[in-house]
Amino acid sequence: MPICFWRRLASVGLGWLLLAAALFGQDKPESRFAEYQSLVDEFIYQSLTERRSYKLLRELCETAPHRLSGSPGAASAVEWARQTMIELGFENVRLEPCTVPHWDRGQVAELRFAAPAYAASDPLPILALGGSVATPENGINAEVLRVRSFEELKERRAEAPGKIVFFDVPMSVTMASTFSAYSAAVVFRSRGAIEAAKAGAVAAIVRSMTTRLDDSPHTGGMSYQSNVKRIPTAAVSTLGAERIARLIENGETVRLFYRQDSSWKEEKPSHNVIGELRGREKPEEIVLVGGHLDGWDIGEGAHDDGSGVCHSLGALDLIAKLPERPRRTIRCVLFMNEENGLAGARAYYDQHRDEMPKHVLALESDRGGFSPRGFSTDSGPEGRALCEEIAKLFWEFGASRIIPGGGGADISFMRQSGVPLVGFVPDPHRYFDVHHSERDVFAQVNDRELCLGTACIAAFLYIVAELPETFPRNSAPGR
Amino acid sequence: MPICFWRRLASVGLGWLLLAAALFGQDKPESRFAEYQSLVDEFIYQSLTERRSYKLLRELCETAPHRLSGSPGAASAVEWARQTMIELGFENVRLEPCTVPHWDRGQVAELRFAAPAYAASDPLPILALGGSVATPENGINAEVLRVRSFEELKERRAEAPGKIVFFDVPMSVTMASTFSAYSAAVVFRSRGAIEAAKAGAVAAIVRSMTTRLDDSPHTGGMSYQSNVKRIPTAAVSTLGAERIARLIENGETVRLFYRQDSSWKEEKPSHNVIGELRGREKPEEIVLVGGHLDGWDIGEGAHDDGSGVCHSLGALDLIAKLPERPRRTIRCVLFMNEENGLAGARAYYDQHRDEMPKHVLALESDRGGFSPRGFSTDSGPEGRALCEEIAKLFWEFGASRIIPGGGGADISFMRQSGVPLVGFVPDPHRYFDVHHSERDVFAQVNDRELCLGTACIAAFLYIVAELPETFPRNSAPGR
Repeated sequence: MPICFWRRLASVGLGWLLLAAALFGQDKPESRFAEYQSLVDEFIYQSLTERRSYKLLRELCETAPHRLSGSPGAASAVEWARQTMIELGFENVRLEPCTVPHWDRGQVAELRFAAPAYAASDPLPILALGGSVATPENGINAEVLRVRSFEELKERRAEAPGKIVFFDVPMSVTMASTFSAYSAAVVFRSRGAIEAAKAGAVAAIVRSMTTRLDDSPHTGGMSYQSNVKRIPTAAVSTLGAERIARLIENGETVRLFYRQDSSWKEEKPSHNVIGELRGREKPEEIVLVGGHLDGWDIGEGAHDDGSGVCHSLGALDLIAKLPERPRRTIRCVLFMNEENGLAGARAYYDQHRDEMPKHVLALESDRGGFSPRGFSTDSGPEGRALCEEIAKLFWEFGASRIIPGGGGADISFMRQSGVPLVGFVPDPHRYFDVHHSERDVFAQVNDRELCLGTACIAAFLYIVAELPETFPRNSAPGR
Repeated sequence: MPICFWRRLASVGLGWLLLAAALFGQDKPESRFAEYQSLVDEFIYQSLTERRSYKLLRELCETAPHRLSGSPGAASAVEWARQTMIELGFENVRLEPCTVPHWDRGQVAELRFAAPAYAASDPLPILALGGSVATPENGINAEVLRVRSFEELKERRAEAPGKIVFFDVPMSVTMASTFSAYSAAVVFRSRGAIEAAKAGAVAAIVRSMTTRLDDSPHTGGMSYQSNVKRIPTAAVSTLGAERIARLIENGETVRLFYRQDSSWKEEKPSHNVIGELRGREKPEEIVLVGGHLDGWDIGEGAHDDGSGVCHSLGALDLIAKLPERPRRTIRCVLFMNEENGLAGARAYYDQHRDEMPKHVLALESDRGGFSPRGFSTDSGPEGRALCEEIAKLFWEFGASRIIPGGGGADISFMRQSGVPLVGFVPDPHRYFDVHHSERDVFAQVNDRELCLGTACIAAFLYIVAELPETFPRNSAPGR
């Protein structure tokens, strides 16, 4: 019998179907919220059938691919979000003002080898870092000082004056979490220009923040310090970084020609975009969900953070279609200016400070639209236990993990008022392949992965908004 | 202080870094095998640094993209695998014979609308199903009977004679597991030609097995039944299926012209490719790992099952570099003919039947090279508990889940001898986007995702091979 049975399967190469058939419905952990399992299943069904989040993301990426704060694209995104919320039937749709910095990349970003001569044609693709000043109009031609740490820069400080400091610190490829690897390396992007200027350098070039080896540079925010000279800075592709490094390791004296015309413009008025589903019993109590509407001025910001925007819009859309609203209000806030200032996040907090005690929980999605793995939270043991009970409902597709951590930059201000913060946690492996680069486009987002995330977020929000008790509050730090 | 702190973060938009910094090292479940955590970390480090599996996959996809059993490509893959094992320093590298079916797709696969005339230019991309006979040389021109189930075909049996039966059953997009959705729909691919022929039809067209809507058809195995007429069958792209369906739903009488010249050739000699790392204490006891070396004759079989092949090779390579071998032998078996016959799997079982009591465990990777989520196993409670203890070591990157199920088609024969079976379980969402289609190419595989899987598999194998006790045996069914 068994052989015969396997032989039949053999003819279609499907032995492993048995496995698939047995995968589900076993060993599922019992949740306190088991009554909501059918709701979760309904959200998954709706989200994967309608694929609302995916269609919205396509719209956003087509309407306003470049959404850097202060740009016309950011303004288009605000108007698109407002109209979308109205079309989806959200309530109290409104724009709330904030004043954003406006940095402009300009037209020129050029890096090439000035010496050795034989390397002149090797490409060194760069992107100015967001916030960088321009080089002199005729560019900078200077020798390179390559360092692998701030400590090395300190030790070799005497060599730095007049040079271009090249921070050649790869994101570790060997950490299980790409986010940890990013955290460890990004300080050279954010503070490289400060430390290089302190040492007397004329510019800072940073290796792109990605584990890939390619010729696509990755931009991102950087900072200056008030008492330190502002020198221009850019990110070079990882392959470009390897080219510079190889020449230096071969004993060459490397000179680079570097030119860019980025600039700071006047601050601009802009907006957070807000819409709600009013609660049926406690409309004054708010469960907040959001992502950031701004993005960099290259690629389409599809994962960062078009996905979070469309997760949020899609989650409210799923809940709006239920026959009855949950007890509390669910508020969608699409924040402006996460990438280079957090002006929208700060404005929301300032404008709603009195309402903070009524903010029951805030959830952000800003880690991409990949396959859902779970949520992070800064809640205490009681709140965390509730999160775990909710996430058990996502066991079937492997998104039951609750890890410690905040929620996201945009909701981080609320922490000081004791609002429990939650972050959506998708699979991390591909995020930094595309992050802040030309590759962060709609085609890099998978419809199933995105829409499963939306369903998880919708269910999480609904259950918190429907809880008979109030979600346990955090102690408010710094008060 | 807090505000000031957040303001500083604000300038680089990095508030969520705090989250990342806090993500790891907390709440990790204690494993009985905690002593091996540093080994796991070492495997991850090595695998992500060297990216051996990824480089091997590139080689395989370039050397032998088309590896259908009996084809020259399959023979190239066998030779590539043998040489690779020798180069990697495996022991007892050998080819073990099996006789495989040889089906050939031919040069022609054409489907178009014969009526209504206005639809004549609408594309209907098809791929012959593996094993299908050809149409008559001048093709088939026949009316279409569209059915959504075998029950519907039964009810409408009187309409079927002389027609092309069109099985228009989409893979459910709403199941959390794409494998469950595939299981539910694939019966129309595997048995469609049989049921259609029984009803008197002249051909069977099946909607491709994917949740995507596109014009890329997906092939796969099908079967005939000895007493039923063999009619030709092919898979049409999902968009093609939608085009046919729309016309029929609009009340049109749809006729299709269908032609293909696929054929069966003589059976061919072929091989499983085997290499080992001999155990230091119990070399006669075997922990087996494998995938299948054959693949379809389109795309590159990068996920199916180039990934499983390179997971297996890469895992042995990681273990081979340790200063000491584990107690037991680890044997890599790259099976031939999983896709259309399981001849290699059967040959291995037949040739090693006496050795089965010494097969401690068999692990297969045949679900793609995506982000690792855990393992399936058919082990009893004791064996499963061991698997769970091992998988706890993969907690940091979210691959700790142990689900019930077999291991894979190639190792399934061993079940009847009580060998515990384990399957590598990666994220399932993108697999059927590419499976058995032109899109299953190297570029669809992410290096981190693939190489993390390799590290998990290596650690799993090592710990089982090093266990002081023997891994608990399954009761042998059917004996």
